[in-house]
Amino acid sequence: MELQTTLELVKMLKSELAEEQVTVNETVKELHSRDESYHFPQLPDIVVFPRSTEEVSKIMKLSAAYHVPVTPFGLGSSLEGNAIPTQGGITIDFSLMNKVLEVLENDFLVKVQPGVTRSQLNKELKKYGLFFSVDPGADATLGGMAATNASGTTSVKYGVMRDQVRDMEVVLADGMVIHTGNRAAKSSSGYHLNGLFTGSEGTLGCFTELTLRVYGIPEHVAAARAAFPSIHHAVEAVVSILQAGIPIARVELVDEASIRQVNRFSDTDYLEKPTLFLEFHGNEAGLKQDVEFTEELVASYECEDVYFETDNAGRNALWEARHNLAYAYIHGNPGRKLMVTDVCLPISELAGAVGHAREQVEKLGLIGGIVGHVGDGNFHVLLMLDLNDPVEVAKGNQLNEQIVLYALERGGTCTGEHGVGIGKQKYQQQEHGDALVVMEKIKRALDPSNLLNPGKIIATDKKGAIL
Amino acid sequence: MELQTTLELVKMLKSELAEEQVTVNETVKELHSRDESYHFPQLPDIVVFPRSTEEVSKIMKLSAAYHVPVTPFGLGSSLEGNAIPTQGGITIDFSLMNKVLEVLENDFLVKVQPGVTRSQLNKELKKYGLFFSVDPGADATLGGMAATNASGTTSVKYGVMRDQVRDMEVVLADGMVIHTGNRAAKSSSGYHLNGLFTGSEGTLGCFTELTLRVYGIPEHVAAARAAFPSIHHAVEAVVSILQAGIPIARVELVDEASIRQVNRFSDTDYLEKPTLFLEFHGNEAGLKQDVEFTEELVASYECEDVYFETDNAGRNALWEARHNLAYAYIHGNPGRKLMVTDVCLPISELAGAVGHAREQVEKLGLIGGIVGHVGDGNFHVLLMLDLNDPVEVAKGNQLNEQIVLYALERGGTCTGEHGVGIGKQKYQQQEHGDALVVMEKIKRALDPSNLLNPGKIIATDKKGAIL
Repeated sequence: MELQTTLELVKMLKSELAEEQVTVNETVKELHSRDESYHFPQLPDIVVFPRSTEEVSKIMKLSAAYHVPVTPFGLGSSLEGNAIPTQGGITIDFSLMNKVLEVLENDFLVKVQPGVTRSQLNKELKKYGLFFSVDPGADATLGGMAATNASGTTSVKYGVMRDQVRDMEVVLADGMVIHTGNRAAKSSSGYHLNGLFTGSEGTLGCFTELTLRVYGIPEHVAAARAAFPSIHHAVEAVVSILQAGIPIARVELVDEASIRQVNRFSDTDYLEKPTLFLEFHGNEAGLKQDVEFTEELVASYECEDVYFETDNAGRNALWEARHNLAYAYIHGNPGRKLMVTDVCLPISELAGAVGHAREQVEKLGLIGGIVGHVGDGNFHVLLMLDLNDPVEVAKGNQLNEQIVLYALERGGTCTGEHGVGIGKQKYQQQEHGDALVVMEKIKRALDPSNLLNPGKIIATDKKGAIL
Repeated sequence: MELQTTLELVKMLKSELAEEQVTVNETVKELHSRDESYHFPQLPDIVVFPRSTEEVSKIMKLSAAYHVPVTPFGLGSSLEGNAIPTQGGITIDFSLMNKVLEVLENDFLVKVQPGVTRSQLNKELKKYGLFFSVDPGADATLGGMAATNASGTTSVKYGVMRDQVRDMEVVLADGMVIHTGNRAAKSSSGYHLNGLFTGSEGTLGCFTELTLRVYGIPEHVAAARAAFPSIHHAVEAVVSILQAGIPIARVELVDEASIRQVNRFSDTDYLEKPTLFLEFHGNEAGLKQDVEFTEELVASYECEDVYFETDNAGRNALWEARHNLAYAYIHGNPGRKLMVTDVCLPISELAGAVGHAREQVEKLGLIGGIVGHVGDGNFHVLLMLDLNDPVEVAKGNQLNEQIVLYALERGGTCTGEHGVGIGKQKYQQQEHGDALVVMEKIKRALDPSNLLNPGKIIATDKKGAIL
């Protein structure tokens, strides 16, 4: 942005919002230039902190008037550079819009502002015996999670973020405010805007309120670790659990290298073998039968050790260890940055894909482990890269590409839950083919000047126009 | 259409397809002029029966070249005039594209052509121990079910049509063929075209292939009828079952008047009281506990009679009776046509809404009963109208409107599962507000000449342009 434009726009923004809600402070800009990924940071020109939908609408109108890009920002926990403002402009930080507005306990719904975090919401819901199911590990904001269609450990049972969105208040490129849905459990009225806006990564509008589905805290929960002689055995065991129709609530694969990181970081002494972390929800009798059946099934895949966590504390420790895995890698590898692959495949292709990924990691001599929400066919390689070593970075990119191409050739997707952002832009054409033309038409129809998080999902030419 | 255009277009169509796949026969046109609803029929000018995606693409290109509307047609079981070609033109009948293309049993997926019916699919899937969950009662085609985002008795557990669609092959207005998804269980890549096209009622493209999620036939199933002193008691019992977290697979409300129709038509002797039809799926032990808990719960709502169907035959008879209810009304009222209301509300508003609907039916002196997928907050009034009696038709419309407005004022939707079609067009503005502007932009972007089932979902002016 030209300095003159920036100064004028800051003045206008300060006249519409309060003085302290608009900043060009370098430290603040720096904090909004990056996420938790390896992607190259880019400073926004201005950071604004709206307090209301009306203020977001005013910001959007000014962005349109000054022809300046806007990028929404939650907590910066994205993993593909989704919130990096690659063309500068205004970053909208939603941290002041962080209220749980309404818990509709009888309807199993909650209405929140986009800056509310997952843990903040669950703390509030606990008072009502409810919980929010989507659990991506990071304590992301719900706005951010909706923007990338996040999912995580529980989606095998409860679905992904898109499945939880009943309604969103969205501010469009021209400042108009719409609602994408309603409070009914289902609808056949009009086009499915809930689905379209969820996962749109700020490219079609900014979310200012979300009405989300919540669930009763399950009556009974059982969790277990099961260690296997190989990744292949572990994945095959998952497939057989799914095929047996056991309604498993979580099933996470953690490979040998990752268990080692867990043990170091979380001070645990888990057997250092490819391991499944499992969880079952249900009534007491049904759960018991599910657990027994699962024990039989894993035994037939040469499971070497099954350990059931019977109390809350043990279960929490188990899932904390799993959730802290990315941080375990980061802390265990100072000076390196995290690159996470994120493909999802049909379940029948999963064992092959995970085996292929493990081979490639070793062949390229990279540091990293494999973890995954294997019940969905989604897995990640967590790579720790020295960004100052161009050879290592090239190897990381090569691995990512090999894994993506393997998935795309087998009916999978380049991103199961992290979104397109910067890292998966180049695979959109290959994954979607001519459907990308439809996506481009939708983008053009809703953001004709290409000001909303430009360059994400839909590619942009050098002049900033939609390709 | 002008005769000259019709003749020329028929000639062109016959040169691209085979002679017998294109017809202007009056009887065939008449069969494609109506659905199962009270909506006024309208003849198409031409009916075509494509055999392949390529042929559908050729038809779309000719429609574009001749500027003639196209309306897709499955079996005509829609209930809101969704497939009535209100502006004439070409109707595409998919009955020759009726193959189950591939059962991917290990991935719990099936690939079908749009003309496959629900019962045809389930017959095929049974060989693999699988079933397709969406069950709208009518033996509709899967293409039609995707077009209206159908649901039905099992959606409380398994979700609606949109939740089952993993991928569709779609022919766009210009003949281009796209895929809306892939075979992975989840994806965060690109805009959610599966969701957008599902429920688009032929206004954005024609579906030529569907890849759908299927499920293992549950190990154990229990079904029951529970009769209550009032509708209010029955609905409150459902709310308490849901709040108890019992993972009920089906829960249908059938009111007293409808039970009477069932007994007459299906030769049953069910107690003529407001009744819940219930079904539970699960493992043996879990099911037993769910059933016992449900019995306790319904007893506390003054349930007067619970009868469990323990064998397959009894269960089938129960659900057949429920499914045949619309036909029972039709056969029991010769000379009258069916008008079905179809709102869906937040569950906390359901008892009030059903009570309000019952009161209005009685006040207006109409013939009809209430049934509903009450676990979703969705209910129907089945009205039998004498279309030759303008006073009765006006009363039917008045009732429909009262029910819709009641729902919209309480966060509900004007259509839970039948779609917009002709009947719910007039409520789109009120339900969606400014979001309708976004829908119009999407329609314009994908069908700029407004030739795809024009006038459905998005209103059309007298010249046929998008409003």
